[in-house]
This record gives sequence, C-alpha cells and structure tokens, in this order.
Amino acid sequence: MKPLDDNWFTEPCEEAGAAFSLHIQRKLHEEQSPFQKIEVYETTHFGNLLVIDGFVMLSGRDNFLYHEMMAHPVLYAHAAPKRVAIIGGGDCGTLREVLRHPEVERVAQIDIDERVTRVSEQYFPELCESNQDPRAELLFDDGIKWMQQAPAGSLDVIIVDSTDPVGPGEVLFSEGFFRACHRALDQGGLIVQQSESPLLHIEILRDMHRRMGGAGFDQTRTLFYPQSVYPSGWWSATLARKGALIEGFREQDVQNRPFETRYYNADIHRAAFAMPEFFRKELAGLS
Amino acid sequence: MKPLDDNWFTEPCEEAGAAFSLHIQRKLHEEQSPFQKIEVYETTHFGNLLVIDGFVMLSGRDNFLYHEMMAHPVLYAHAAPKRVAIIGGGDCGTLREVLRHPEVERVAQIDIDERVTRVSEQYFPELCESNQDPRAELLFDDGIKWMQQAPAGSLDVIIVDSTDPVGPGEVLFSEGFFRACHRALDQGGLIVQQSESPLLHIEILRDMHRRMGGAGFDQTRTLFYPQSVYPSGWWSATLARKGALIEGFREQDVQNRPFETRYYNADIHRAAFAMPEFFRKELAGLS
Repeated sequence: MKPLDDNWFTEPCEEAGAAFSLHIQRKLHEEQSPFQKIEVYETTHFGNLLVIDGFVMLSGRDNFLYHEMMAHPVLYAHAAPKRVAIIGGGDCGTLREVLRHPEVERVAQIDIDERVTRVSEQYFPELCESNQDPRAELLFDDGIKWMQQAPAGSLDVIIVDSTDPVGPGEVLFSEGFFRACHRALDQGGLIVQQSESPLLHIEILRDMHRRMGGAGFDQTRTLFYPQSVYPSGWWSATLARKGALIEGFREQDVQNRPFETRYYNADIHRAAFAMPEFFRKELAGLS
Repeated sequence: MKPLDDNWFTEPCEEAGAAFSLHIQRKLHEEQSPFQKIEVYETTHFGNLLVIDGFVMLSGRDNFLYHEMMAHPVLYAHAAPKRVAIIGGGDCGTLREVLRHPEVERVAQIDIDERVTRVSEQYFPELCESNQDPRAELLFDDGIKWMQQAPAGSLDVIIVDSTDPVGPGEVLFSEGFFRACHRALDQGGLIVQQSESPLLHIEILRDMHRRMGGAGFDQTRTLFYPQSVYPSGWWSATLARKGALIEGFREQDVQNRPFETRYYNADIHRAAFAMPEFFRKELAGLS
C-alpha cells in the first residue's frame, strides 16, 4: 500500500479517523473570499469538485443526491409551497431543484458569500441555470439576521443548506435560530436542514431534534440518503413542521411531476424516512 | 492539503478515481494464505479492519450494516427458511445473523479459504460467536462446485457473501452459477448476493438482474443500504426468487424478532427495496 500522490484531493474527517479522496486532473480555481477559501478542482471521475476551507461541498457526479433530497421531499410534504427561503446554498443547486416546482411563487436565497455563487456560475453552470428565474431573489447577506427580520408567518418552506455545525455554521443548529424559523413560517410550514452523517454524528442529530422541538415545532423527522463525497458516504436532512405533522405528501403530484429526477421519486420519498434501528432507539431516548 | 502519512490505510478505487482511508494505530496481522493476502489493522475510530488483497472487507464499526442486510431481508422474505447456504462469508458475520433466526435448521457455509475464518476468530471474535452452533457447518471448499453438487431443491435460501466480480469472485456473478443456485433451491427459494455500488457499478447490477432472469428466477429485486468502508459508501444486494415473487415479508415476525438489530427493522426492510429513479430507468431498459 503506497500513499496517494499529489494528484489526489483528500479530505480527512478527524472526528471519524477516516478520509475521502478524489483523483484530480488539475486545480481550476483558488481564492480567499472575505469569508472563506474557495477551491475548484477538475477530477478524473467525479466531474468538478467544489471545496470550501478544505471541506468538500459538492462534486458534479453525485450532487444530485443531496440537492434533490434537500428540495423535493420538503416541497411535496407541503400542500402549497409558494414562499420559500434558502439559507446558504450559494452553489445554487438546491435553488435549481426548488424552481422546478410550478407551485413555488418566490424563493429568497440568502448566502453570506457572493463569491461562492460567482464561482459556481463559472464552474458548475448546470447548477446555476435557473438563477435568472424571475421567482428567484439572490441575496448575499447574513441568513440568520434575515430570518430574524422576516415577517411572522411569511414563509411556507425554509431550506437550510449550510456547512457543518462548526465555526460560522454553528449558530444555524441552535434553538435560537430554529425559533426564528418557526416564527417566520406560516401554519403548516416546514423547515429542512442538512444534518450530517447518521453513522458519525448521532449527537448532532439528537440535538437538532431536541432543539427543533424546543423551538416549538410540532414534529421532527429525519431523511436518510447516500452522499459519496461526504464523510461516511451516508448523509441526512432533518425536517420539522409548525402546527401539523409531517406524515403524508402530495404523492399524485410526485407521480405527475413536470421535471426529471435522478434519485427522488415517490418510493424514495417514503423510504428516506425509514429510521434505522439504532437511530429509532436514540430518538426514543429523547422523550 | 497535505497527503496522509503512513498511519493511514488507503484503498483506492481505480475505476471511480476515488479512495477511502482509515487512520490506523497498528497492523495486527499479515499473512499470505494459499489463496490471498490477509491483513488486519487496528484503526483509531473504526475498530479492527479486515483487508484481503488490499481491499477492505469489513470494519468493526460498520459491518453491522452489511451483515444485517445480507441476512435478515432475505430470511424474512421466505415463509420458512430452514435450509440455508452461505457462499463465501468466511468472516462469519453473516452466519451469526442467520443463526439468530430460530426457523433456520441448518446452515452450510462454504468459503474456500479457512485462514479467513481463523483470522476472524482471533480478531473479530464477536462475528464468530455462533460458529459452534450445532446448526452450522463450516466447510472450506470451492463454493461453486459445492453448489453444482447440491441436491436439487435442497435449499430455501442462498446467501452469496462474496468479493468483487474480479478474479476468483467473477464466476459467482455468471449465469452458470445462478443456474446452479436455481437448481439447488426449492420452490419459493431465494438467493441474495452482494451487488456492489449503485453509483459506481450500475453495469454490474444490470448484468446481475439479466443473468438471474436468464437462469430461470421469477423475479429479481435490489436492496440498497449504506456501507461506509466500501467505495462510494453506498452498497447493494440483489435478490432473486424461484417460482414466486419477492413482494411481502413476515412483518409480524420482524416486529417480534427474538434478537437485537442495529440497522434492520420492518421499515428498513420496505425502504431498502425503494429504487432510485436512475436505477428504475436502467432496469426498465432490460425488458
């Protein structure tokens, strides 16, 4: 076994003693924005790779898994998702999926770093193909402040497409932020947030459920899906609903959806909510 | 980004331009058996690690995912699984899960390399804790020959717990082998076989479905589950049934199972069969 040479990008996950590497052709871009270090690589088999502060954000090959699962389950779980906010999401891949839904009337995307979006427009044009949609408003600002100032009851769906809960992303996992989201949501409104690896980060998941409940949401549920380029290859998103349960979704609308998907469908919607036994026991300990 | 040092075990997956690494404390064992090179490492966060010919076979931390999914769905899909054969599976983790089922009357495990079992007894004693069960027969022999010589209709369930379809493992993915399995199974009998990564090996999966159908099985279905230490972190197993459909399972028995699981339960059983959209389209092209 010889170590990988310089033609690989490696992200070690210290807290798991594991690392994931992709074979690269070359570095396409590197800059220090006012907020973070942004890099783009061309890989041999995974398309282009976006890296922020050394952490893999997405690859051209497998981002469809994450982006579809951040957008479609929550939108089809809502009866009429007209007003949507995306916190983070600067690569615009989630925004693209959200805008595929004809029910959506407007989407505000609030990412603090405009450079992520500009770099994505250049190196991931397919993710940015809907950025000019008149329903979309791209704001480059503090998402937490934006949420605190949003009029009460003014949103149907909030998507928190954030980085890990370390450093600047940490406050997005706090009960205070969830309270601001709860206030901004209308009755029946839903929030979904990326919630790390079920195998590696069970404490983060447990805390999210507890804090979302503490913030006043009526029910919380976690979605499970594969994501090769993230630690452990297994990822999750956690939903919470205001004034209603999460059960059920517009299945007929999923069947008749006016757009193509690569991962999501009605069977996957149901399946993604199935709780592994260890997770079920972990959450049972909460109540 | 500096490359990983010598304290990491790395498995590159050439055909995907990706690699997975685990931080190791030390090498516990290395030998060249008559069939392959067997290594065991102690990792910092994933327990002990079994490596054969440079490929990760299992870790102490996440093997429960694979072993539970290789054993429980197929056994609960059968009305009365009394006679079971495991081809490969020398680490005995699948065998342990199979023997948890009180309905099982005998299990023949046929692995060509006795050294894998002996090394596992030493470094993964938890996986081998049922090896002395009087219902279990551990044979160290050629599994393909064994299957060809098995009396027709003598088995209820076949579990093919094999390596990748390269080198000696390749014949286990052939239509000829599936024909031998079909012959050895009783009416209503089921086979399940590990079937690689849905993201990376769609051709292998498609070929398996085609060949199982060609061998006379009435229906084929694929199970999807996470497996961090395998390429892409997303893995699969493919089932086929003789003389019946795969739909349905003994759900009441799953609810009342007399043993603990960490991943598997009735919801996971149903969910694991959900086909990602790209996979559904791929298989639709078969008929």
